[in-house]
Amino acid sequence: MGRRRFVTAAALSAAGLAAGGAGPARAAEAPEVTWRLTSSFPKSLDLLYGGAELFARQVGDITGGRFRIDVFPPGDIVPGLQALDAVQAGTVDACQTQLDYAYGKDPAFAIPTAFPFGMNAREQAAYALDGGGNDLTNALLADYGAIGYPAGNTGAQMGGFFRREIKTAGDLAGLRIRAGGLAGRVLQKLGAVPEQTARSEIVAALQGGTLDGVTWVGPYDDAKIDDTGKLQKAAPFYYYPGWWRGGSMIHVAFNKARHDALPEAFRAALRTAALSTHLQVQASYDAANPAALKRLVIAGAELRAFPQDLLEAAFKAAGDVYREISDVNPRFKSMLDAAMAFRADQYLWWQVSEYTFDNFMIRQRARG
Amino acid sequence: MGRRRFVTAAALSAAGLAAGGAGPARAAEAPEVTWRLTSSFPKSLDLLYGGAELFARQVGDITGGRFRIDVFPPGDIVPGLQALDAVQAGTVDACQTQLDYAYGKDPAFAIPTAFPFGMNAREQAAYALDGGGNDLTNALLADYGAIGYPAGNTGAQMGGFFRREIKTAGDLAGLRIRAGGLAGRVLQKLGAVPEQTARSEIVAALQGGTLDGVTWVGPYDDAKIDDTGKLQKAAPFYYYPGWWRGGSMIHVAFNKARHDALPEAFRAALRTAALSTHLQVQASYDAANPAALKRLVIAGAELRAFPQDLLEAAFKAAGDVYREISDVNPRFKSMLDAAMAFRADQYLWWQVSEYTFDNFMIRQRARG
Repeated sequence: MGRRRFVTAAALSAAGLAAGGAGPARAAEAPEVTWRLTSSFPKSLDLLYGGAELFARQVGDITGGRFRIDVFPPGDIVPGLQALDAVQAGTVDACQTQLDYAYGKDPAFAIPTAFPFGMNAREQAAYALDGGGNDLTNALLADYGAIGYPAGNTGAQMGGFFRREIKTAGDLAGLRIRAGGLAGRVLQKLGAVPEQTARSEIVAALQGGTLDGVTWVGPYDDAKIDDTGKLQKAAPFYYYPGWWRGGSMIHVAFNKARHDALPEAFRAALRTAALSTHLQVQASYDAANPAALKRLVIAGAELRAFPQDLLEAAFKAAGDVYREISDVNPRFKSMLDAAMAFRADQYLWWQVSEYTFDNFMIRQRARG
Repeated sequence: MGRRRFVTAAALSAAGLAAGGAGPARAAEAPEVTWRLTSSFPKSLDLLYGGAELFARQVGDITGGRFRIDVFPPGDIVPGLQALDAVQAGTVDACQTQLDYAYGKDPAFAIPTAFPFGMNAREQAAYALDGGGNDLTNALLADYGAIGYPAGNTGAQMGGFFRREIKTAGDLAGLRIRAGGLAGRVLQKLGAVPEQTARSEIVAALQGGTLDGVTWVGPYDDAKIDDTGKLQKAAPFYYYPGWWRGGSMIHVAFNKARHDALPEAFRAALRTAALSTHLQVQASYDAANPAALKRLVIAGAELRAFPQDLLEAAFKAAGDVYREISDVNPRFKSMLDAAMAFRADQYLWWQVSEYTFDNFMIRQRARG
């Protein structure tokens, strides 16, 4: 797989170099371009929104300021959930989003972002860049007039805050849990009721008992749901792992017609800046989460692992959901099957060296 | 930490944008630059050498061909182990290397590449980009007239091939093992004899009994030591985890005076292309290792985990080595202490969500 990627890039580059030599002439021909990028993420989620700003800055910096991308928060141009629609319609040139916000259009949009019991963040990147994943994503995006690249990952997410302890899979019955997309469908099979609740209403809903649990992101972003301690008081049990998101990939996506009309150097700038941003956003989450986890625990969050029987029931339920969707949606089936095959091989290797290294380090740390 | 990074970048970018507007004029002023980059890795290690080529292509592509970097394999200009020397001397403008090849100049060069019982690859990236690690690396590199960035990672390495089974830490006594730097010193404390053996001589040395074990990289590169099956026949026991390298970071480094003399856009291109390359090289290793591991096992390699008592003895020995070097080398001590503090927090968080997610996935996979 690695060879294919490099060979493709080499072929592209050979073409580029063949056209070289007349550097200054081409430079003078390079246009001034200004694009508008709408983010799906509010400024308060600063690592995500900061990723959009970083991406735009890098594109500006590496093009000597000739390709400028102005970043807008959700609501300035379109609401956060309509970012991809706005790219398709040409209202904006680009967006930064979770592609699974388009789950309602096609559940296949969940695959490149995250699917229950999918891959961890590093495996997701390997799949996207060297396992054919990003090509499949772009085949899907092409139907919406778009093209995109990975541009960040939150890492494995937490299972969220719950009002009561969950001791067995059966305890999910009747619980109203803020969760969407594929995770919501799996939770439904386990007897829970998935809810859509705006962030500003989460604490009141948990306090009032109209919501029993809330899934959000990971410690750094979860700590921002409420910084007054009310969240942990209303829903003290903080669960892991967030089995529906072993990693959650962020993308930048562009209006394909406008992307394809760009000079080759600008298209290369978009791709290179996206992947550089991906690494930086993941690093920022990894660096920020440990301290945030400590703060949450000090503020009253009680860490709990999901019970083993719940994980197994959820794994089985996820398989049922996948079969149901695959039966009626060939694209979902083909994208899921490819990702699943890659996943199996990844965990074969992961269990050998990566996992045993982490296992030993975690045990040594626990001993002090 | 995340905020600091973004704020710094924002400040830089604001300056860049303030100078904007006169795009075509500046573009016309942009020079044509050709640099020479020497790689420490032979072309046969195609994912590493391919990373140098990818880096150079990206820099060329995003600068519209104005900043060209020609890549040379070891031996064409200087031997692989002298890459950083050549950058310092100005013989070349840039190199792609493992910084710990300069371990002999200063053991502190091991910290940014890998140190026994250090961090996994994702944690290393988080430390470099958002934990101050790359700044400390560049403070060290400045003494050698260089500046650099992460540009790849092999992931957790394997423990290598051994002629005989190792059932306890005591079995290492007297074994001649190909290993260098900090790993070699730790192995020495455990009674083994670290050896430097060229790749072309490894199989014969194992066959002849002048070498008892060889550490190399991971499955994909290990499979290339010998493709005739002689390696597994001479040394069938294939150990994990490679506790001396939970990840092994690759860097690109530049002659600092020449780097600093570049136009701002070219400096940004170097950094952005380096980080994009980092993500791609790691993805390529992750994607390529599973199939390589299967091939090695089919060809006769017998997978074995290092015994727990060996890992614990090695952990203790590593601590002794770290104290010995720290007593006489303040820079090593300060760089190690900073990395160790970051590591402790990383594994606190890692054991919660990342690890439990991977744990469940590995167990489900093993069940079929």
